[in-house]
Order: sequence, then C-alpha cells, then structure tokens
Amino acid sequence: MRARIVLASAVMVGFLVPLLAEEGMWLPNRVPRAQIKAQYGFDVTDDWLAHVQQAAVRFNNGGSAAFVSANGLIATNHHVGRDCIGVLSTPTRNLLQNGFLARTAKDELACPGLEINVLVSIEDVTARIAQAVTPEMTPAAANSARLAAIAAVEKASTEATRLRSDVVTLYQGGEYHLYRYKKYTDVRLVFAPEESVAFFGGDTDNFEFPRYNLDISFFRAYQDGRPVHTEHFLQFDAGGVKEGDLVFLAGHPGSTQRMNSVAHLLLERDVHLPDMLNVLRRRELVIGAYARRSPEHARHADDQLKQFENSRKAMAGYLRALQDPILLAAKRRDEDALRANAPGGPAGPVDPWQMIERAVERDRAMSPERRLLANGQAFHSELFRMARTLARYTDEVGKPNGERLREFRDSNLESLRHELLADVPVHPGLDVVTLADSLSYWMERMPQDPLLLSVLDGNSPHARAMQLVSTTRLADPARRRALLEGATTREADTDPMIAVARLVDARARQLRHEYESGVQEPLRQAYAAIARRRFERDGAAVYPDATFTLRLAYGTVKGNTAADPAPWTTRLGGIFERADMQGQVGAFALPESWRRVASQLDKATPFNFVSTTDMIGGNSGSPVIDRSGHWVGIAFDGNVHMLGWNYAYANPEARAINVHAAAVAEALRVVYTARELLDELGVTSVSSRASGGGR
Amino acid sequence: MRARIVLASAVMVGFLVPLLAEEGMWLPNRVPRAQIKAQYGFDVTDDWLAHVQQAAVRFNNGGSAAFVSANGLIATNHHVGRDCIGVLSTPTRNLLQNGFLARTAKDELACPGLEINVLVSIEDVTARIAQAVTPEMTPAAANSARLAAIAAVEKASTEATRLRSDVVTLYQGGEYHLYRYKKYTDVRLVFAPEESVAFFGGDTDNFEFPRYNLDISFFRAYQDGRPVHTEHFLQFDAGGVKEGDLVFLAGHPGSTQRMNSVAHLLLERDVHLPDMLNVLRRRELVIGAYARRSPEHARHADDQLKQFENSRKAMAGYLRALQDPILLAAKRRDEDALRANAPGGPAGPVDPWQMIERAVERDRAMSPERRLLANGQAFHSELFRMARTLARYTDEVGKPNGERLREFRDSNLESLRHELLADVPVHPGLDVVTLADSLSYWMERMPQDPLLLSVLDGNSPHARAMQLVSTTRLADPARRRALLEGATTREADTDPMIAVARLVDARARQLRHEYESGVQEPLRQAYAAIARRRFERDGAAVYPDATFTLRLAYGTVKGNTAADPAPWTTRLGGIFERADMQGQVGAFALPESWRRVASQLDKATPFNFVSTTDMIGGNSGSPVIDRSGHWVGIAFDGNVHMLGWNYAYANPEARAINVHAAAVAEALRVVYTARELLDELGVTSVSSRASGGGR
Repeated sequence: MRARIVLASAVMVGFLVPLLAEEGMWLPNRVPRAQIKAQYGFDVTDDWLAHVQQAAVRFNNGGSAAFVSANGLIATNHHVGRDCIGVLSTPTRNLLQNGFLARTAKDELACPGLEINVLVSIEDVTARIAQAVTPEMTPAAANSARLAAIAAVEKASTEATRLRSDVVTLYQGGEYHLYRYKKYTDVRLVFAPEESVAFFGGDTDNFEFPRYNLDISFFRAYQDGRPVHTEHFLQFDAGGVKEGDLVFLAGHPGSTQRMNSVAHLLLERDVHLPDMLNVLRRRELVIGAYARRSPEHARHADDQLKQFENSRKAMAGYLRALQDPILLAAKRRDEDALRANAPGGPAGPVDPWQMIERAVERDRAMSPERRLLANGQAFHSELFRMARTLARYTDEVGKPNGERLREFRDSNLESLRHELLADVPVHPGLDVVTLADSLSYWMERMPQDPLLLSVLDGNSPHARAMQLVSTTRLADPARRRALLEGATTREADTDPMIAVARLVDARARQLRHEYESGVQEPLRQAYAAIARRRFERDGAAVYPDATFTLRLAYGTVKGNTAADPAPWTTRLGGIFERADMQGQVGAFALPESWRRVASQLDKATPFNFVSTTDMIGGNSGSPVIDRSGHWVGIAFDGNVHMLGWNYAYANPEARAINVHAAAVAEALRVVYTARELLDELGVTSVSSRASGGGR
Repeated sequence: MRARIVLASAVMVGFLVPLLAEEGMWLPNRVPRAQIKAQYGFDVTDDWLAHVQQAAVRFNNGGSAAFVSANGLIATNHHVGRDCIGVLSTPTRNLLQNGFLARTAKDELACPGLEINVLVSIEDVTARIAQAVTPEMTPAAANSARLAAIAAVEKASTEATRLRSDVVTLYQGGEYHLYRYKKYTDVRLVFAPEESVAFFGGDTDNFEFPRYNLDISFFRAYQDGRPVHTEHFLQFDAGGVKEGDLVFLAGHPGSTQRMNSVAHLLLERDVHLPDMLNVLRRRELVIGAYARRSPEHARHADDQLKQFENSRKAMAGYLRALQDPILLAAKRRDEDALRANAPGGPAGPVDPWQMIERAVERDRAMSPERRLLANGQAFHSELFRMARTLARYTDEVGKPNGERLREFRDSNLESLRHELLADVPVHPGLDVVTLADSLSYWMERMPQDPLLLSVLDGNSPHARAMQLVSTTRLADPARRRALLEGATTREADTDPMIAVARLVDARARQLRHEYESGVQEPLRQAYAAIARRRFERDGAAVYPDATFTLRLAYGTVKGNTAADPAPWTTRLGGIFERADMQGQVGAFALPESWRRVASQLDKATPFNFVSTTDMIGGNSGSPVIDRSGHWVGIAFDGNVHMLGWNYAYANPEARAINVHAAAVAEALRVVYTARELLDELGVTSVSSRASGGGR
C-alpha cells in the first residue's frame, strides 16, 4: 500500500528510482520500460516482449505456464497440472503418488477437458464498448447494452480470426481490451514427479518459506495429432540466477482488489471473506473425512481437498491483511488524497465513492442468497454443476448471442462443450457428502426458504443428497452428450438433478441479474470514474487489478529479513533434513526415488528461491525469466505476507517463492534419469554450474 | 421421538411392555423397576441399586467410570483419562504414544488437577428452592433469589457433611435435588494402552460402527497417600455378555434437549448449532495446522485437537438430526398433544410455550455477543481463562456467598482453586494461534465493537494475541498462586492478560446476567410448568434431561439393521484386517505391541459390541453392567444415529458402542502381560470363556 502511494508520487515529481519500484502486474502492452531501464539499466525491447508474450501459456483451469522447447513442450507447476494428473490416475496407475515420465511421444497421455491459451494480440476496444452505454440508461439497461456490445465484438473477432476472442474489463471498467488467443485442446502429460516431493510439506508448509518443493510438471501441446512447432519458447537455463538478480514473471494473476475503495474492502473483510471461509472450512472437513475412509476414497477426494486447503489458507491470509488496521489506514489516506484531488473538488457532481457505498450496501443485503443460489454454495456437486449447464443450455442457445448469460456466448460455446462432455470420472460418494453439506448450509442460512423446502421435498439435506446423486444419470458422458444434442426438444431431460436445477433457476438467474445490474454495473461506472481520476493524476504509472490475463512483473531475487542472514534460497539437501525432523510422515514423507539417490544429489543445488516479483493466485506456473529471456525458474507460491498483495503491494517481508531451474535439472538427471527431457531442454551438464549459484 | 410418545401413551393406558421401552436416563432414585421387571423379568433391588450407585464414579473433566476392585481401582475410557495421560507425558516419556503400566503402587502416577466424585446421597429440596421464589418477582429477582437459595442449601450441606454438595436442577426447573459426593483429588494412573489402539481409526471411525477400539484406562483413587478401600465395586467379568442380553449403563450423561419445545429446538438448529460448528471448525483447523509444524507441536495440541474433532462430529450429528423434518414433525405432534391436554385447555392463563418463544427471541438477539464475551468464544486461550478467573476471584470472594457467580460459591471454591493452581503445562505457541483466531472471529462478528478496538489497542488480532501471550506471566503456577493469595490487595496484578480480562468483564458479566435473568429464568419457569403438566398426564414415566449426574439406563445387546445379518459385536481379529485395508497409516497404524503378538491373540474374542442403552456425551466410561451387577464392558461411543438421542430416543438404528470385557482381559493378558492388574480384577483364565460369547 505504502509502496503504491510512494510510486505514484515519485513518478509525478520526476524521481527516477522510487522505493520498492518492483510493484506492478503490468499489461504486456503497457510495460514501464523507462522505469526498468532507470532502475536496472535493462532495455525491455519490443522483440524481448513479443517473444515472452508468445511463449507464455495460460492453463484455463487457473494457472500459468510457458513453452520451453520448439516442439510444444510446456513447463508449469505440478499443482497446476494436477487436475489432469489426477484424472489420468487409476487404482492401478496412481500418477500422483508415483509420478510419470513419457520417454517417447507415444507414451504421452492426453488430458481430458483441458484447454490452454496463448495470447496472440491485444486491441483497445474501450471506445466501441463505451459508446453502447449512454448516461441516461438505467443500470440494468447499461449492463445489458455493455454485455451485448462485448458479445458482438467477441463474435466478430472469432468469426474473422478463428481465434478465441475475449473482451477483458480492465481498471474495473476504465478500459476494455480485446485479447485474441490461440487455443489448444489436445494437451498431453510428459512428466510429473511424485506429489510427495512436488507438494512436500503439504498444507503445513504452503504459503511459508523456507520451502523444498519440486513443484513442476511438463506437458506438450498437440495440433492435428502432432506436437505443435513453437517458434517462441523460453530457453531452459539451469545456471545463473542468484541473489540480487533482476527477474521477470510472465503469468496470469487471477484477481486482486487493489483499486477497491475502503467501503468495498470493509464489505470484503466483514461479509464476503468470513462467509467464504466458513464454507471453505466445512467443505475441507467433510471432504477430508471422506478421504480418510480408505486409500481409494483419498485418491478420489485428493484434488478437491488440496484446492480447499489452499483456498482456505489464502483467504485466511487475505482476511488477516484486511484485519490489520495499518493497511486500512493507509488505504484511507490514499483514498482521501484522491478524493481531495478531484477536478471539481471533493464535492464534485457525482461522487464515485458514494456510488460504491450504495452498491456495497445492495451487495451486503443480497449476499447470502446470491452466493447460495447464483454462485452455487447451496449445490456443491459436480453432477449439479453439469445439470445446471444442461438446463440452461436449452434456454440460452435459443437467444440472440448478445442476450445470453456470458458463459453461453458464441465465442465460449466450444470451450463450454469441451469441458462438459469430457470423460472425467465423477465420484458419487464424494458428490453426496459435498451436496449434503451444501444443502445443510442453505438450511442454516435460510431455514424458512420455501425454495429450499421444495428442493428437499420432505427430506433432510443428507437424505435428499443421497437420493439425487443415486438417481441422476449425468455421471455418464454419453448421457450428457445425448441431452446436449437433444437439448432443444426438452423432452429427454427427466433427470432428477436437472429437475432440481430447473426448480432453482428462475431465482438463481434473478439474483444474478440483480447483482450484475444493481451492484456490478454501478461499481464499474464508479471505478471507471476513479480510474480516470487516477490517470489524470498519475499518468501511465497505473496498472489495472489482475484479470487472469497476461501480465509482466519484475523484481529482485532477495531474501526477507525474518531470518538473519536472510536466505534467498534453500538447497536440495534441506529437504532431507526437514523430512527427518518431521519423522518422514504424512506430507513430509519423501518418495523412495529420492531417498534412494540421496547420496548422489548435489545437496548444495539451489532449490526454492524468493523474489520481490509481484504476483497473486493464478501466477502459479509463471516462468521466472532473466534478462536474456531464459527460463531460470518457476513461481509456485508466496509467503504468508504475499497474500496481503491481494490489496496492496506494501509489506516489505512479502515474497514470491520459485523453484530454481538448477533443482529441476538436477532432479531430472539424478532422480528421474530423464535424459530425453533434459536433451529437449538443452541441458548438458548440470551440477557444476548449479552449485555456483552462490549463497 | 416416536418412542417417547408410544411409551407415554402405553403407560397411560396400562400396557405392560411398550415398544422400544429401553428409552430413559433414569434418576437413581426413580428407576422404573416395574417396567424392567415386566419386560425382562429382572428385579432391580435396593441393594443392587445402592451397590451400583456407590461403585459409579464421575470424572469431573467430563466422563464416567466405575470402581472395579476393593483397592480403589477405577476403569474408565482411555479418552476420558487422556487429559491426565497427556499431562503426564513429556518429550522423552510419551504415554499417549507408548502407553503405560504401573506394576506396583509406587509406579502409579498422580494426575494434576483431576477430581473425581462418588454419589453418596440424594435429597429432594424442591420445596426449599421453590419457596424462595414468589410469583410477583421480576425474572432477575427470581433468578437471584433462586441462586441464593441454592447456594445456601449447598453451603449448609457442605458444612454439615464435609461432602461436595451440588443442587441439581432437574426437569429444567421442575425439581431440585441435592446431590452429595465423596470427592477424591489424588487420582493416579495405573494403566493406559497406546492411543493408537485406544482410538484406532481416529476421527474417521468416531461415531461409526463396526469399531475396534481398546478405549480403556485404569486409575486408582488415593486418600491420605494410601489407596482407598472401596466396599462397593463392580466385579470384572470377562465372559458372558452376548447378543440379546439385558444390560445396564450407570453413568453421567452430560446434557440432552429432549424436553425442549419446538421453538427452542429451532433456535438450536438455526442459531446455536451453526454458530458453534463454525467456531469448532475454525479452531480444529488452526489447531491442526499448529500440530503439523513438528512432532512436538503435535504432542502439545493433541488433546485440544481431539476434543475439537469429537465435538465437531457430535454437533454435526445433532444438526443433522434437527434438520430432519420427520423428527421435527414428531416433536410438533407431541407438543400439540401436550398443549391440547392442558388443565385449562389449550388457552390456559399462562402459556409456557409462549414464554419459551419470547425467551428464545431474546436469546437469539443477544446470542452472538453473549457467546463471544460471556462464553469466551472471543478468548480461546488457557492463559485468558486463568486471567478471567483471577480477575473475578478478587471481586467475587468479597461478596456474600449467595450473590456470587455460581462457580465462585463456597461449595465450589476448593475445586476451582485446585484446577487453577494445578501445575499443568501451558503451550504459548498454541495459545497464540487460538487467541488470534478467536479475536479474529470477534472482528468478523462485530467489526465495529468499540470494546474489540480497545482490546486490540491498534493492532491486528494476530499481533495482539502475540503481544498478550508473550508478556503475561500466568503460565507460571507460582505466579498464579501469588496473585490468588494476594488477590484482595489488587496491587499485584499488572499482568496484561488480566488487564484485558478486566477490560471486558463489565460487559461479559452484564451479558451473562441478562441471559440468566432474561432467558434462563423464564425458560426454567416455563419448563417447570410443562413438566408439571407431563407429570399429571404421564405419572412417573418421565425422566429429566441429562445433567451430568448419575443416571441408570437399560437396554439390549443388539446389532442394528444397516448390515444383514446385523452384527452385535466385532472381534479382535478385525482390527488387523482394518489396519491392513487402510495401509497401516495415520489413525490406522497399529502399535508394535499388537503387531508382535498378532498370532497369539484369540481373534474370535468379542471386541466392541453395540446395545440399545440410552446415552449421550458424558456417558463415556460408563460401566456396562449385567444382571449380577458385574462389569461386562464399558461404553465409549455411539453410532451417528445415536447423536439424534440428544433430542429424542427415536431412531431404531441408533446404538451405543462398548468395549467387551473379554477384549480387555485378552489384551491385558497377551499384549500387555499385565498379570498384577488381571489378578486385582480377579481374572484367571480368559480366552476360552470369552470366545464362547456367541456370534
């Protein structure tokens, strides 16, 4: 927080090297080159930027990645790839437990339902979207008009270019950019280590440092059954990066709330985060209980369980940051300064902060019911999610493109069908416990809701969940395909889960509509006005909040001061010490493959290192890039203070945590003897260079 | 629920053997002898009853037990004894992990802070308490007058008899009985198995059947440094009990809500249980995270963690029962019948159900703040608990006995000092995480509370918890003793934790007072009126809700119908199969002592058996007694349906779960070679008799 204020003022008065200038998740078309040049003496050239942009990959299930060879090889985190690694596992072939290595192309395993994107171009379409909305429109009309304009732009672009085309809302509505992506839906697993070493320390060490995680996996993009040729990839470089180095992060931060007003942050602190945390905790506990019933149950629940643990810990960190009065006081000062700086003075004709306050009050009032029914808190169930999509598909595809719910717009239909029809296993027992828990939560929040009583149909939440899951046939992908294809006839869907989805759909849509027009639309207008004020005051030194689109961050490899001396990296040998200290149990049990070669590994190899590169969830898997544009590491986590970056890049103790390329190379060489992969990465000799990384 | 209605009607019209007549937690002075005689042909004689009553033992930390030898030997559950077993453990002597056996008296280990009670006599003092309250009193005045009358009765009894004397409120205020107890504060550990076999299956198998738990431990009561001689003890009997047998349970069920009105149950369902579950879940997760930091952290947190897991699972079961519309509908029918049956018709002059509704509304309105400040949800910290007691001690001991907070009345002061000054270790790191979480919860629930802001003193909840725990000196028992003894001078307590306790005390006391006079008092009056109506209609066939006082239940050894055939017991061999199926990890890892002798154990020995004996939390450790008054097993759990017994003994699938005496004897003989203990229990040959228990 403090940093952002300093940065803004510094730029205004012409300082060249502001304090903590590493702040920023910069748009690829708006990188602060002068500032980087001034601070590090490094020129971010057009070629360097274009190369990085086209090597960067987005995993649509929520992570980042990069091409690392000319033959479509992709490096991402193990925890980004684990959706696929889990789906490909069976009782007799547990890839999460045992890892995986395809030594030849024919051994590579296709990931069902996975889509990845590569950004091809960006076009500013703010004017085209803005002209669709006129000042005299009601919020609902403005929202509809804007959505229709966005859908039209996307559809025209998709038809003209055959590229995935998304209009991205930047600066909360201050600008609209059209992003065009190449998309790949044939993505195959090449290498994954055992999860016990990829996620060594588990939930305990998550968001902590020091760390010892080989959080990496490799995939390959295919097109027409052949590996894609990728002109732009980042050269893997096992040596080199060391304390004090300038590094870049090219990834897809999911969302941040740095521009939020104080009133909006208080809503987050007092309503949304506590509510989300309550739900996350209960789901984590019921899924955990399910997982402990047997090793097979554990395998089925593992992916959801890890997601819930991770989200719970992240949200708890967000809440901790917002419950700190120092952060909020700084936010208040920033806001007061910007309000005082208004063109018409603090009492201008339309005060956007007051607009936000009113929208926040509406949000607060509708929040429980909206989250339950529109966001699906009341229906935590893979089968219900499918049922809702199928139920809505019928209605939506019959409407003009611009009037549909956003996820059913033409430009997204192919991706939606790809995901819905993927042959991924559904675990009915798990669906029962999560659905029972969510119906029970609905009853806790709204015990008198007539809609709840209709859904329960005279049963307890637990009994109703059992009934629905055991009678629906949607677990069968062929059944889903049949319903989707016969969807316009409507007669086929006597499925009880679809019936429930239809039962709640009118209310769910109404709540969504009220939220989009009564909360999101005024927020967008207000934040757009504030963004204009900020541009006027601070010029280009403003980056938008994260939007799960490509951003470039830069920073320094640097330990924090919690320890003295502040270690910038851990070493491979540390994982054995930590495992022993913890008695080699649970998340601290090392796989046999590592224990076997303990004596052969170069224990001094840098393992996980920290940097000041700005990031947030979604950046997982982002390549760490050096001045030469080489791949020198991969971001996978941050320390607990980093979670405060959701609201402000302020705490000087906050750090991103990355796997060092040297550790990847050493593990591939010694533990996994992955010669083919090392060859493709262009690694020849590893160990001697790596240890040179310095202390 | 259904059962209770059937029972009541059946008694009214003179049926001798009502369906499911096993219902009831009967007062020792009001056992339904005629009914037992009619149903089982068994005479509960005065001698049999007196013997059982004086052999039964209450563990004041929340469990049940019984004398099982003439030399003060006591059998209880391992999980009842584990408070002490944990406190006696050190890094080098981990009794929870390794178990414990004292082969001679001098090896027995004294439990700090533990008090146990044996019921000596019961006296009905309803008239003396009732006459203190007159109809024209305000609720606050009535509550004060009643508390003063209770304190006077207790004090007079304590002075006259030197026995612990508690006035017990029965039928929610329908009757008051004076219970006099012998109390023992020198209690020593004799035997405990490894927790891995006492709590085999852990949280996963808790509240489930089939089960395989050796949930037993032995203690010995001492007086004046010598084992007490106990005339009344239950003879340990390893043979005999089998499917279909009549068995009794003599224990101390903690609390039930079976008499609660529907409005009151809805408050429980919609407000109290969801709130308590939210708190339990978050505490379980933060304590679990703390425990996973290292094996030493795990040892410190283990006891709290298990308590929270257990409570969370129990409360979830209660909520599941109340969210079942069938149970609530039956409750409504029962209530309607009783209201219609009123002496003055349904519209009598004072409708107690309306009184309850009004009290429930007041409870609902004050609930969040009261739970936070008066119940201590905002201050989950051992150190704060001590600070509050010390801060209040000063004020309370200066008042007349009848005007003090109940826990400070003369008859309880010795027990309170015993607990406060016990030399049990405090783990500051654990106190920080639980206090931080509870302050954070306070901010979530009441973000604008000026009292919260005073307590935080400009810090975040996390930072403030760190400050308080690291600066208080209350972890030192000598410091606590000094403060307690110099308490009337007040000058000594500059302790920051005591300062915080004082800061919130005015409000905490006010909330407690408003609750006791505005909620509890009208509830007591209303339920007393309802109880009178019930007595009029049903005669003596009404037992009061549980009050953590001695009760006798009876029932049948009988499997439930979830499996076919319904197994009434598991066998010793089953524990090895379940451990293997779960890969011998976590809560399913068997101790070395068992694996070593696997081939020597009689695998057919009955292990855990189920019965229809009515019970609830607090009954843990209750002896299972046969017709001869022998100790044939020990209750330790119930299945998930049993949790519904909190509100109604209705679900025919509900069962209590008990350890069979034969398994105890076989394990003592083969696994632990505890010859001295077996001799004292009077066990000579074990195995052949035990297997005869039938299938």
